[in-house]
Amino acid sequence: MRALRLQEWKSEPQLVEMPEPTPGPGQVVVRIGAAGACHSDLHLMDEFEPGSVPWNPPFTLGHENAGWVHALGAGVTGLEVGQPVAVYGPWGCGTCARCRVGVDPYCENPAGAPVPGGGGGLGLDGGMAEYELVPHSRHVVPLPAGLEPVDAAPLTDAGLTPYHAIRRSWHRLAPGSTAVAIGIGGLGHVAVQILKATSAARVIAVDTRADALALAQECGADLTVMSGETAAEEIRQATGGRGADLVLDFVGVDATLRLGAAVARTVSDLAIVGIGGGTLPVSYFSVPYEMSVATTYWGSRPELIEVLDLGARGLVRPKTTRFTLDDALTAYRKMRDGSLEGRAVIVP
Amino acid sequence: MRALRLQEWKSEPQLVEMPEPTPGPGQVVVRIGAAGACHSDLHLMDEFEPGSVPWNPPFTLGHENAGWVHALGAGVTGLEVGQPVAVYGPWGCGTCARCRVGVDPYCENPAGAPVPGGGGGLGLDGGMAEYELVPHSRHVVPLPAGLEPVDAAPLTDAGLTPYHAIRRSWHRLAPGSTAVAIGIGGLGHVAVQILKATSAARVIAVDTRADALALAQECGADLTVMSGETAAEEIRQATGGRGADLVLDFVGVDATLRLGAAVARTVSDLAIVGIGGGTLPVSYFSVPYEMSVATTYWGSRPELIEVLDLGARGLVRPKTTRFTLDDALTAYRKMRDGSLEGRAVIVP
Amino acid sequence: MRALRLQEWKSEPQLVEMPEPTPGPGQVVVRIGAAGACHSDLHLMDEFEPGSVPWNPPFTLGHENAGWVHALGAGVTGLEVGQPVAVYGPWGCGTCARCRVGVDPYCENPAGAPVPGGGGGLGLDGGMAEYELVPHSRHVVPLPAGLEPVDAAPLTDAGLTPYHAIRRSWHRLAPGSTAVAIGIGGLGHVAVQILKATSAARVIAVDTRADALALAQECGADLTVMSGETAAEEIRQATGGRGADLVLDFVGVDATLRLGAAVARTVSDLAIVGIGGGTLPVSYFSVPYEMSVATTYWGSRPELIEVLDLGARGLVRPKTTRFTLDDALTAYRKMRDGSLEGRAVIVP
Amino acid sequence: MRALRLQEWKSEPQLVEMPEPTPGPGQVVVRIGAAGACHSDLHLMDEFEPGSVPWNPPFTLGHENAGWVHALGAGVTGLEVGQPVAVYGPWGCGTCARCRVGVDPYCENPAGAPVPGGGGGLGLDGGMAEYELVPHSRHVVPLPAGLEPVDAAPLTDAGLTPYHAIRRSWHRLAPGSTAVAIGIGGLGHVAVQILKATSAARVIAVDTRADALALAQECGADLTVMSGETAAEEIRQATGGRGADLVLDFVGVDATLRLGAAVARTVSDLAIVGIGGGTLPVSYFSVPYEMSVATTYWGSRPELIEVLDLGARGLVRPKTTRFTLDDALTAYRKMRDGSLEGRAVIVP
Repeated sequence: MRALRLQEWKSEPQLVEMPEPTPGPGQVVVRIGAAGACHSDLHLMDEFEPGSVPWNPPFTLGHENAGWVHALGAGVTGLEVGQPVAVYGPWGCGTCARCRVGVDPYCENPAGAPVPGGGGGLGLDGGMAEYELVPHSRHVVPLPAGLEPVDAAPLTDAGLTPYHAIRRSWHRLAPGSTAVAIGIGGLGHVAVQILKATSAARVIAVDTRADALALAQECGADLTVMSGETAAEEIRQATGGRGADLVLDFVGVDATLRLGAAVARTVSDLAIVGIGGGTLPVSYFSVPYEMSVATTYWGSRPELIEVLDLGARGLVRPKTTRFTLDDALTAYRKMRDGSLEGRAVIVP
Repeated sequence: MRALRLQEWKSEPQLVEMPEPTPGPGQVVVRIGAAGACHSDLHLMDEFEPGSVPWNPPFTLGHENAGWVHALGAGVTGLEVGQPVAVYGPWGCGTCARCRVGVDPYCENPAGAPVPGGGGGLGLDGGMAEYELVPHSRHVVPLPAGLEPVDAAPLTDAGLTPYHAIRRSWHRLAPGSTAVAIGIGGLGHVAVQILKATSAARVIAVDTRADALALAQECGADLTVMSGETAAEEIRQATGGRGADLVLDFVGVDATLRLGAAVARTVSDLAIVGIGGGTLPVSYFSVPYEMSVATTYWGSRPELIEVLDLGARGLVRPKTTRFTLDDALTAYRKMRDGSLEGRAVIVP
Repeated sequence: MRALRLQEWKSEPQLVEMPEPTPGPGQVVVRIGAAGACHSDLHLMDEFEPGSVPWNPPFTLGHENAGWVHALGAGVTGLEVGQPVAVYGPWGCGTCARCRVGVDPYCENPAGAPVPGGGGGLGLDGGMAEYELVPHSRHVVPLPAGLEPVDAAPLTDAGLTPYHAIRRSWHRLAPGSTAVAIGIGGLGHVAVQILKATSAARVIAVDTRADALALAQECGADLTVMSGETAAEEIRQATGGRGADLVLDFVGVDATLRLGAAVARTVSDLAIVGIGGGTLPVSYFSVPYEMSVATTYWGSRPELIEVLDLGARGLVRPKTTRFTLDDALTAYRKMRDGSLEGRAVIVP
Repeated sequence: MRALRLQEWKSEPQLVEMPEPTPGPGQVVVRIGAAGACHSDLHLMDEFEPGSVPWNPPFTLGHENAGWVHALGAGVTGLEVGQPVAVYGPWGCGTCARCRVGVDPYCENPAGAPVPGGGGGLGLDGGMAEYELVPHSRHVVPLPAGLEPVDAAPLTDAGLTPYHAIRRSWHRLAPGSTAVAIGIGGLGHVAVQILKATSAARVIAVDTRADALALAQECGADLTVMSGETAAEEIRQATGGRGADLVLDFVGVDATLRLGAAVARTVSDLAIVGIGGGTLPVSYFSVPYEMSVATTYWGSRPELIEVLDLGARGLVRPKTTRFTLDDALTAYRKMRDGSLEGRAVIVP
């Protein structure tokens, strides 16, 4: 089969021929229907080097995958060959307290995982190939009726990541509350959809680009605010001076973090989702009382099942552009030069 | 001023002349903009007798009230004359654990309340008059911008009661979940709107009348089911066999309670909101594991503020028909003979 | 190996010779260190008949098991031969929404489970033998340091069942709250220990036997109340008239359910844990507002891990009497005639 | 009457003669039984200047007060002259969303409060006097049976502040979890008692002083760790490498915040309670995933009622030294030079 592989750090991936995988006991091989291309893949190609992470090339790219069950290893129950499925991306040890409830991204025994702190497309072979070997059947999640693999794939990361960051703050999103999403890109525009579908919070979207704000409006944002010097004041006024109950920062640079803290309410959440490398200095009088600052990373398996339901019912639809496996490099080039519309989905 | 008063048990209320109230320390007089007529008022007129409740006529009817602040008693802060407000209806003692967090319906010191287990229109003078005396300023809640008293009044009971019954079960209403509303009348159709506005649950509406189901659909129900022998089976199939995570019974007779238990999922809530007088026999193997059966009564003050926000934003709009104080008896007659459309709102 | 097997319904189990089990892919064989004898086993022997449950004899008894990993099937990770472990008893399908978060007792796909609605000792071979075959490695939970299998075994049911019923109501057990445990037997006395170890609730224990009340006191109960006509009044007075925030009924007959509803507070939980066959009629005015009545069954895998931690730290210690496999029938006879002290644990 | 007043910024308070207060409508005068002296009072005397806070001297010190109802203003219900009470210290506007549920410290309308962001002893006359005027009866909380004013006073701040910081994280404190308290002074030693009384978390206490660690042990700490280079490693080892589910920093300098972040688990809370002026730089890879950093300030009125219950039952007992009003300055001097044992309580 063909696979798009990262052969070494600081290089472009290559489309190469590989043997088809076969499943061991408890494992599943998925025939890939679609694999999302993520901005973080560019970091893998461009910036990572030996020691950056506890794993190394070569491996096949693609950590946002969906398709159909192709082969079941010995002892696997509850799945059938041909069944449409999504692949849950973060692969933990399976036995720590986090993994036992499906929260693999926060696995507390990475040495016991198939690869420490990674998964398919992140140290192990991912979905930019005709088939993917999934090392444990629990990572294979049946698609709800009406959801095709090509639509499901981007939900496994671009959908799941904002979903998790929102769901953990649902208790703050009662009527009268406000949620602010900073950065209306691949994750941010899905965040607006999720907020509207699952809560009665007013949604305010912030970005530096007018077309991103237009997309936010299309996704249901109640108010859009152009990033800049007056943004904080505009948002505070729109909340009657109280501030936002939830701020989702999908950028994560110094300026967006500062904006987030400036518009947050007392007893609120500021979730840092974007890996922009910024720092927020937190001290007793620098932030609102009980504004909880936390990073979030990906989401849990039960949450993936929930976000797939939102997808199947048309309540959440990431914007996507499709590419073939042959054109996958084109997708990454467009991503790099900013000419890509929505999420790139590779369809083998 | 004129007031519609219940003069004695088992009689029709009368429109009589009354002195205007004046506020004592900590009290507020509200000029009434609208007072909702509730089905429970019919019970007051028709069925109650000395000893039914710990209070007696005469008193002015109307426990769903909104208007404008007319006069403030000594020591009242935070309100201004002329300000549009809703009146929170259940008036507790103000100092027990329930009242301290605004949950007056479950006041644990009724002897310390203005009237035990009642409020304005329920033992004390209510809002079917030109003015209402509110015995404590905390019951007077400012209206959010854009919400008129005539639209706010029905939200204080027909909105607040289903809102409370839904809000306490939000944690069960994740994507993939199902909520069933039985009885799409004055409260039920608002419940459908609230469920759609605040959660991603699939909403199934059940009633015996086709027009009620049509109203449910208009309010956003995902599925409507005609009450009858196959209803339970239809609902269970629509939930993939699992059952509903929340059942709201706005009728409360034996048959609806039985239906509720038949369609509930394990680890679910069955809320009995309707006072139909039915009984559900609960034993270890007769109901799904961890289906929690509970009655709910009205709602809390913070919840009223939230439901007013939903009203101001147009997310919840009870259907109403307006009547003048002179025509109030007509409203009750129409309610009695079933010819009333939506909630009757008396506008003095 | 030897095993105590129920050969047919309505018969005494027999100690017979069996082949040692070998693990298939994903499975584990546990060398049994201890197996608890449960009162429900008597129901299996005495009352069940074809059709009572969706499984039939013959099978080895014992659903409260702990020991040491003996053999690992292909593909099992995270466990080592010789490691001390507890066996999580309810064995669900592993892939439904409930099983995915470790709530196997409420498995929604029983047809996909090793046995529908059962587990080891309940339709499949249990732990009253030298070895037990566990059909999926996720059911095998490592023991925390300091906890021996003989002490862990009774925690898997007699500990886990009350733990679950308490944990789901933790949010009601703030300082100032009251929990009532009715029936201070095998589960009830552990419930008192768990309540004291995990909350600041006042604990009131109710039983018909003075020695049971003495045991409750030993376990930390703040007040003990002899069952009888004045019990409800005593409990209500002890709570300042408000009632209990949580009632745990470990008996479940009409009288205890009636007592539970009589002493519950508004906005409380009444958990029916005991399978006494009683019925509580629930109607709008017959129970306190928002007293939630629900049955609970066993507990989840994450909860088992938590209760094992309580055991390892000495905060929860079920009273036990040890028997050899040869004397297992004696244990059941003593249980039947009421002469058994605490939980019987069979040590092969 | 006599009162200890701060006459101007940067000065020692003076014991002066004042007229007895009389209550206006809705107000209460409390005869003081005890007033706690707080470390923050030293900041008032030493560091504050015009503009530091939105209020100025002169005012009577003392924001930790308890005593007996002395006089009731017009319209006050639910209280009786002579009744022992605690005074809830933070006095908000009473009508914003926070105040409506008793969370006055986070009042969102400070302009509507008796003094913006303050209370008795903080801008308005406090309890270091024979009588205190409380500007709204809701701030006057009856003492539970068995709790004397002298024991209640320190609970209103030194008890309430750590209680709130712990209670908001209860959902993280299941068996198997760990809580770390850094700084075992006036608040920290009470925090250890509260953690032990209300949860099953393992409690680790950290301080630089051996006698503080001895006090922590006396209060029930499971492990004490001397602050220093190896502290983080010791704590991480004691938690099996996972880290603490809750870190309470009662110091709040750079070093303690750094230690807190170093020992926190993924999905944990780091509460900054101490006003040491330190800063924690938070960026995506500098802190554990989903470690939520937040400041907390004082607590709510319902929480005060709960902590008084813990006090009445002897589960929480702050260490105190008593002084007369004449010796109050001595108390502050001892506090300043470090020779004070426990909390100073002024008994008029």
